[in-house]
Amino acid sequence: MRIQFEDMVQEFKRVLVKKGFSEEDAYESAKLFAENSLDGVYSHGLNRFPRVIEYIDKGYIDVKAKAEKIDGFGALERWEGNLGMGNLNAKIAMDRAIELSRQYGVGVVALRNTNHWMRGGSYGWQAANAGCIGICWTNTMPNMPAWGAKDRRIGNNPFIMAIPRSNGQHVVVDTAMSQFSYGKIESYRLAGKQLPVVGGYDTEGNLTTDPVEIEKTWRVLPIGFWKGSGMSIAFDLIAAVLSSGLSTSEIGNNEAEYGLSQVFIAIDPKKFYSEGTTYDIIDRVLKDLKESEPAEEGGRISYPGERTLATRRYNLENGIPVVKEIWEAIKKM
Amino acid sequence: MRIQFEDMVQEFKRVLVKKGFSEEDAYESAKLFAENSLDGVYSHGLNRFPRVIEYIDKGYIDVKAKAEKIDGFGALERWEGNLGMGNLNAKIAMDRAIELSRQYGVGVVALRNTNHWMRGGSYGWQAANAGCIGICWTNTMPNMPAWGAKDRRIGNNPFIMAIPRSNGQHVVVDTAMSQFSYGKIESYRLAGKQLPVVGGYDTEGNLTTDPVEIEKTWRVLPIGFWKGSGMSIAFDLIAAVLSSGLSTSEIGNNEAEYGLSQVFIAIDPKKFYSEGTTYDIIDRVLKDLKESEPAEEGGRISYPGERTLATRRYNLENGIPVVKEIWEAIKKM
Repeated sequence: MRIQFEDMVQEFKRVLVKKGFSEEDAYESAKLFAENSLDGVYSHGLNRFPRVIEYIDKGYIDVKAKAEKIDGFGALERWEGNLGMGNLNAKIAMDRAIELSRQYGVGVVALRNTNHWMRGGSYGWQAANAGCIGICWTNTMPNMPAWGAKDRRIGNNPFIMAIPRSNGQHVVVDTAMSQFSYGKIESYRLAGKQLPVVGGYDTEGNLTTDPVEIEKTWRVLPIGFWKGSGMSIAFDLIAAVLSSGLSTSEIGNNEAEYGLSQVFIAIDPKKFYSEGTTYDIIDRVLKDLKESEPAEEGGRISYPGERTLATRRYNLENGIPVVKEIWEAIKKM
Repeated sequence: MRIQFEDMVQEFKRVLVKKGFSEEDAYESAKLFAENSLDGVYSHGLNRFPRVIEYIDKGYIDVKAKAEKIDGFGALERWEGNLGMGNLNAKIAMDRAIELSRQYGVGVVALRNTNHWMRGGSYGWQAANAGCIGICWTNTMPNMPAWGAKDRRIGNNPFIMAIPRSNGQHVVVDTAMSQFSYGKIESYRLAGKQLPVVGGYDTEGNLTTDPVEIEKTWRVLPIGFWKGSGMSIAFDLIAAVLSSGLSTSEIGNNEAEYGLSQVFIAIDPKKFYSEGTTYDIIDRVLKDLKESEPAEEGGRISYPGERTLATRRYNLENGIPVVKEIWEAIKKM
């Protein structure tokens, strides 16, 4: 079953208005949800929407609240999320970072007490669409053991970098510090498949590609083993320190995953040079990358963001594939 | 054989002065080299020093050149490295980023045409010692295949994040985008050992922990497989775009690894709040981390930078362990 992008936006918007959002906020948030599904990140689009509605109903997300500036010094600002909708707050924060970059070359916005931003890549695309280099990250609830540990005390803290191109085919890296998300591990289990690479530990403490075993221990693997563990800790600390918000460890004391801390950085490269120069460098790098010798016959080397764009184009034309039950449940909301 | 830190500094300084550096530059650079060995990063301290001298002799490093500002807009600046000494240029760039952060809350310095900065962590410690959050990265020559590729077209592009603490025991993450450096793979081969986790591919295209096999293909593994590959590309692009310098791919056209592009970001968290607050958050996070249940009996969970500090203390007291032949070769320079 496939749904047109605009129909999905309208359906989400209808539900959000019903839950108490203003027309404008409901539209902005609905668009961000629908864009995630459009870009193939179904886990944080349609498939996540019902849980977000549940969080609204439980009062974890305040439909009337929005991020607001509470402190600032030049190009650096601290914003309070007031437990508003996560994707709206994140968009506001990146918009402000972009605005600061127009004034100072760079802008940094640290946001606290916000909610799950859904797909971090959204805010990278947002910065790149504004011609900016975008860098952002979030902390999460404790969902990964630190290197050498069994129990989960650090977050998978997604990290995003985006580099703008004149043709809109931006380079966007959106990567959690865990090798696989819980959702990905579950989907491999449901499909009866092994993970393509090791993703966690079994009950005997051995690395495994078996999703069933990993779900027994929830000892998921940080990217690069000790390296992703270290990066996760640093991202959490910087977000908590700059926003004066909750750390991953403290979010673990909440009854659900809310009250997150995030950092948004925008840098305006056009402060320096003509657009041509910038884009030439990127084109040359990506061309060279594409000329790599594939490890497997017929293999293609993609740059970060390339597959997202291909999916976006396909889904725009053919409609977004949806799980019928979820779509129908949302229609009844 | 162990050498006192100050003796190592003086020996490096003597050689650098002989090569044409000013007294002051020679001391600053010598100190950075010696600090790497002091902190246990021997590969980029004493052990690397002879190769740097060779680069000076070959004219890749210009002993009289230093980084200078060529363009700037508010908190964002572009500096030209003039192929000066890599560690001096990097120190100058991070110093400038720190200065900008005093004025704007955040400072970004993009540096081009510089040389290998040795240990990236140096500039993280530098920022943290100044009370700043430091974030920096460099590109490198092509030394790693992109995900899905056989030939090396991307860099291992080390990435550093540092968070200051009042007690000087800063949190510093210093991590290349490859799982292991060439030097590390070599040292495992020389010791006749297997790598602790997979680090690259054998000639049949299988992941392996065998350093001998990896040295046959030089197909080293990015951290997190496709994830580190994507991050490496993004770091390279941001550095090249902001500095208008060479990309990894273009550095590959040089006869050696010179002409690098780097980014230095400093954020001054004291613009917001009293020191107490900041440091409290960090202490709470690290305390929780330390309370993790170790995966192996008697295991200890370390925070990033903790082992560096322990090595620093030990080597300061007991002297820095050196390879006798290298030390004596340097004494004869």
